Amino acid sequence: MQIAMVGLGRMGSNMAARLLRKGHQVVAYNRTFEKTEALVMEEGGYAARSLEEVAEQLDAPRAVWLMLPAGGVVDQHVDSFLEILEPGDVLIDGGNTHYRDDPGRHDRARAKSVRYLDVGVSGGVWGLTEGYSLMIGGPRDAFEQLEPVLRDLAPEKGYLYCGSRPGAGHFVKMVHNGIEYALMQAYAEGFNILEHSDYADELDYADVCEMWNHGSVIRSWLLELAGNAFRESPRLEGIQAWVSDSGEGRWTVQQAVDTAVPAPVITLSLMERFRSREESSFADRLLASLRNQFGGHAVKSTE
Amino acid sequence: MQIAMVGLGRMGSNMAARLLRKGHQVVAYNRTFEKTEALVMEEGGYAARSLEEVAEQLDAPRAVWLMLPAGGVVDQHVDSFLEILEPGDVLIDGGNTHYRDDPGRHDRARAKSVRYLDVGVSGGVWGLTEGYSLMIGGPRDAFEQLEPVLRDLAPEKGYLYCGSRPGAGHFVKMVHNGIEYALMQAYAEGFNILEHSDYADELDYADVCEMWNHGSVIRSWLLELAGNAFRESPRLEGIQAWVSDSGEGRWTVQQAVDTAVPAPVITLSLMERFRSREESSFADRLLASLRNQFGGHAVKSTE
Amino acid sequence: MQIAMVGLGRMGSNMAARLLRKGHQVVAYNRTFEKTEALVMEEGGYAARSLEEVAEQLDAPRAVWLMLPAGGVVDQHVDSFLEILEPGDVLIDGGNTHYRDDPGRHDRARAKSVRYLDVGVSGGVWGLTEGYSLMIGGPRDAFEQLEPVLRDLAPEKGYLYCGSRPGAGHFVKMVHNGIEYALMQAYAEGFNILEHSDYADELDYADVCEMWNHGSVIRSWLLELAGNAFRESPRLEGIQAWVSDSGEGRWTVQQAVDTAVPAPVITLSLMERFRSREESSFADRLLASLRNQFGGHAVKSTE
Amino acid sequence: MQIAMVGLGRMGSNMAARLLRKGHQVVAYNRTFEKTEALVMEEGGYAARSLEEVAEQLDAPRAVWLMLPAGGVVDQHVDSFLEILEPGDVLIDGGNTHYRDDPGRHDRARAKSVRYLDVGVSGGVWGLTEGYSLMIGGPRDAFEQLEPVLRDLAPEKGYLYCGSRPGAGHFVKMVHNGIEYALMQAYAEGFNILEHSDYADELDYADVCEMWNHGSVIRSWLLELAGNAFRESPRLEGIQAWVSDSGEGRWTVQQAVDTAVPAPVITLSLMERFRSREESSFADRLLASLRNQFGGHAVKSTE
Repeated sequence: MQIAMVGLGRMGSNMAARLLRKGHQVVAYNRTFEKTEALVMEEGGYAARSLEEVAEQLDAPRAVWLMLPAGGVVDQHVDSFLEILEPGDVLIDGGNTHYRDDPGRHDRARAKSVRYLDVGVSGGVWGLTEGYSLMIGGPRDAFEQLEPVLRDLAPEKGYLYCGSRPGAGHFVKMVHNGIEYALMQAYAEGFNILEHSDYADELDYADVCEMWNHGSVIRSWLLELAGNAFRESPRLEGIQAWVSDSGEGRWTVQQAVDTAVPAPVITLSLMERFRSREESSFADRLLASLRNQFGGHAVKSTE
Repeated sequence: MQIAMVGLGRMGSNMAARLLRKGHQVVAYNRTFEKTEALVMEEGGYAARSLEEVAEQLDAPRAVWLMLPAGGVVDQHVDSFLEILEPGDVLIDGGNTHYRDDPGRHDRARAKSVRYLDVGVSGGVWGLTEGYSLMIGGPRDAFEQLEPVLRDLAPEKGYLYCGSRPGAGHFVKMVHNGIEYALMQAYAEGFNILEHSDYADELDYADVCEMWNHGSVIRSWLLELAGNAFRESPRLEGIQAWVSDSGEGRWTVQQAVDTAVPAPVITLSLMERFRSREESSFADRLLASLRNQFGGHAVKSTE
Repeated sequence: MQIAMVGLGRMGSNMAARLLRKGHQVVAYNRTFEKTEALVMEEGGYAARSLEEVAEQLDAPRAVWLMLPAGGVVDQHVDSFLEILEPGDVLIDGGNTHYRDDPGRHDRARAKSVRYLDVGVSGGVWGLTEGYSLMIGGPRDAFEQLEPVLRDLAPEKGYLYCGSRPGAGHFVKMVHNGIEYALMQAYAEGFNILEHSDYADELDYADVCEMWNHGSVIRSWLLELAGNAFRESPRLEGIQAWVSDSGEGRWTVQQAVDTAVPAPVITLSLMERFRSREESSFADRLLASLRNQFGGHAVKSTE
Repeated sequence: MQIAMVGLGRMGSNMAARLLRKGHQVVAYNRTFEKTEALVMEEGGYAARSLEEVAEQLDAPRAVWLMLPAGGVVDQHVDSFLEILEPGDVLIDGGNTHYRDDPGRHDRARAKSVRYLDVGVSGGVWGLTEGYSLMIGGPRDAFEQLEPVLRDLAPEKGYLYCGSRPGAGHFVKMVHNGIEYALMQAYAEGFNILEHSDYADELDYADVCEMWNHGSVIRSWLLELAGNAFRESPRLEGIQAWVSDSGEGRWTVQQAVDTAVPAPVITLSLMERFRSREESSFADRLLASLRNQFGGHAVKSTE
């Protein structure tokens, strides 16, 4: 089917490429035309130089997929397209949007008789070849209209209609990311315990990952990736112990707090990342000072 | 090859069955003869009525695999077999042994010129058909001698020689279980957040599991099992919120503490299980009392 | 000096009483007149029946202290008073306000040449006799004008000007409450460990509190309160293990997340309270189901 | 009364000095005689050059207080004294002993008709002037015999007989230290949140401590010490973010694990100390590598 992909960063361009390879007609648009041109040169599709051109190159009812960085830019594009699109068209936000931003957009779209879908996308750099896991929220008829595209973006069984309430797709994706943080932390702690044991010397962690991934209870895709990482760098030499976090982990924790759901492990996983980025923690310096105050324990000087 | 399986509980009998189906000659022994008889009737192999008969029915060099409940019974069997076995034989402990118990057994075996292997086994009830993940510690030549059996117990690539230091296999298995606790807790918290959200009504969690397992970052075998659980009971109706723990999670935490390795997520996962089994937590009653003392907040009476 | 106390709940009426006993002239106002009347009958002061009467009974420059439940009602009162008050007057919010609500109020006040102070108040039901700890944010000259009142509300050394940035007082109070949660949890866990030990039988926890409060490193006011609680109910019999939380603990956690500051202990303390209120945790039921799926471990039925 | 103090480290010599100033007759002994001499020169008492001399200088029934570093040296001294002491004498271990080491010593003492008391001592460097909090386990008659000394070592109400079961004193002290870790962490996190806020510039943390210590819910002795620390170094400049831990925090966590008592906050406080001492955390490097593997997120190189 026809679809426009707006925003050709790593995710958007890979998704457009995957759709083109599956035989869909993709109208590509990016703020800077170079990326559009590069995609069309390599993978085919139609290049649009403006949002208006995006709409013109699609037959009604249109499907326009936004794949933009989270933040105000998404709202700007939603509003611009709501000026351009026509009743019956479908506007999809596939970015890392907070689910609370979806109901407003949904309402603004409905006022123009445009249907708004919010889609959470997981799969990272592997999605191009393996497919993306897709979580879809919004009007069911719009979802059904999009199914030919969703089916080809995802691997088999890899997309799910999560409900009509606006934000359903982004919400499920948000929780997915919270879980992801905790799974990663679980493996990280396990290998840290191995590394600090007397058994470390004889262990090849890539081999451990491979063995665990064949028959053990903890087999997973993240463990395969850990195996890849250890294969590249057996003791992770040269990698800095500095871990970033994106918004969705924080949103999951805030959701847990707002709804009074205990989520200790997801939360701690997020905070361990904060910890990795602290230099000379003020908290630890106070602890060291307190020990000195009551116990006379020497404080290590930074000099 | 020939091997004896001593201890025919769920794990031992399934492992014996898997080996028999793969064409190995298995001498089976269990404290109560009924289980031995049942195994031999159903799967074949040789029934032994005593430890001496176990040894008699094997050609030297013998391989005797203990699959017994953790605790003193393993040491008793090790010592009994060390009286019976001959130089060159191999004695394997595949049970949930603490790795610290292995060096002593290894030494006692070596004094008799018997080689002792410690093997961690993962795979649960699925191991019979899918194979067991095997982690092996001890003398390399004994490991190599056992490889025909290990290769058939495990799925392809599913066994690993973890080193010559006694306990290496049980140690890696212990850490595996610690990771397992945290992975499970990660999913449990995620679904708990979903369940307490406005989106819960329209979500079929078995479908969510299936979708996440196709293309998402958090796909794993545990998530497949979660899907099975939700398929059986969509909202886990009728299941008590009471979670047991076996020794290995505790051992992993103690290892972390002993070696000063931070493992917050593994530890919290264990403690959440403790929490699930508390009735009328004394800690919470003190918190409620304290709030009453300083704030005049009403305390809920149990009556 | 003269001051109005608006909102005569437990906190407001006790603070008004404390000021009256210290010789200040207090104009009292409450939505329902009964509480105003009761206060004036018992403690003295002037009763106002409307916000306008509040203003009329005070000489300029006026000081009006709002002591209202958090939420929209504070904003309503702020706006109503900004219609009534005159340039040079001081409006104080001493309630449990989120510090992010203060800058807007401060700006609206300044537009009327009224000065707005945000004050965090700690002390609970003991404040009437022991004094309240007061954290003050806003214009320094307004703080100085209020000092005679602040000095008498607080015990000696018990009030602090926390800075001119609007919200400084409420912010410091919020963090205070986060710390409070964690201190309480620390004691609760300690006594829980005692209670589950072989030594519990011979221990009188009220005596333990008293002993620890004389010379030990962990002596504190909360420990005194714990002693009182144990004196009233040695094993906290009849108290439900159900712990409420007010907004400020949640706000502290959100602040930590927003500013990427690791605060594991404060956060876990909050989540332990959530946990105390869960009935038949969905997370735990999933854990139990998962154990059953992979290990064949029996699930406890709720029947 | 008469008592021997064996072991004149910081704790032992201060305790001996306190007893001497209160009018007791103290026989002092230390492995190296210089410390014995220094104590006797400054504070009085009798110097003993051997364990035998310790016993000779005391009238029966004797009281010998061991104040030695934890570990094998305590057992050696217990056994040596059991050779020297006579039926009816009392042997006290006031060191940081694990409570599980007490029953064996108690039995060995009883076999010689000597009574063994285990005493947990809190108070740190302030104990000399303010008194020590004392937790006593063992035979009640021995406790009563020692009361004149206990009463003067402790501040008023600062000692408690914790029960006849051997180890009761050390057990209660151990839990005390677990609580201490969590209280310290609570304050550390709170000040860390303050420090990373927009309000930090205008806050003097020593003033915040002092204000909170007058009338607030979180007032405590540790908060006084924090005030001292901030008074000495307003932003803890020059102090290294490196926090040691002694055995008792670890023992408390192990106790919680052994008895299946959830103690998340005490445990996390311990693990945060481990974290403070990690350089280039292996766990964090794995997390960074995993993010790179699935998301193409750049890894920071250590170069």
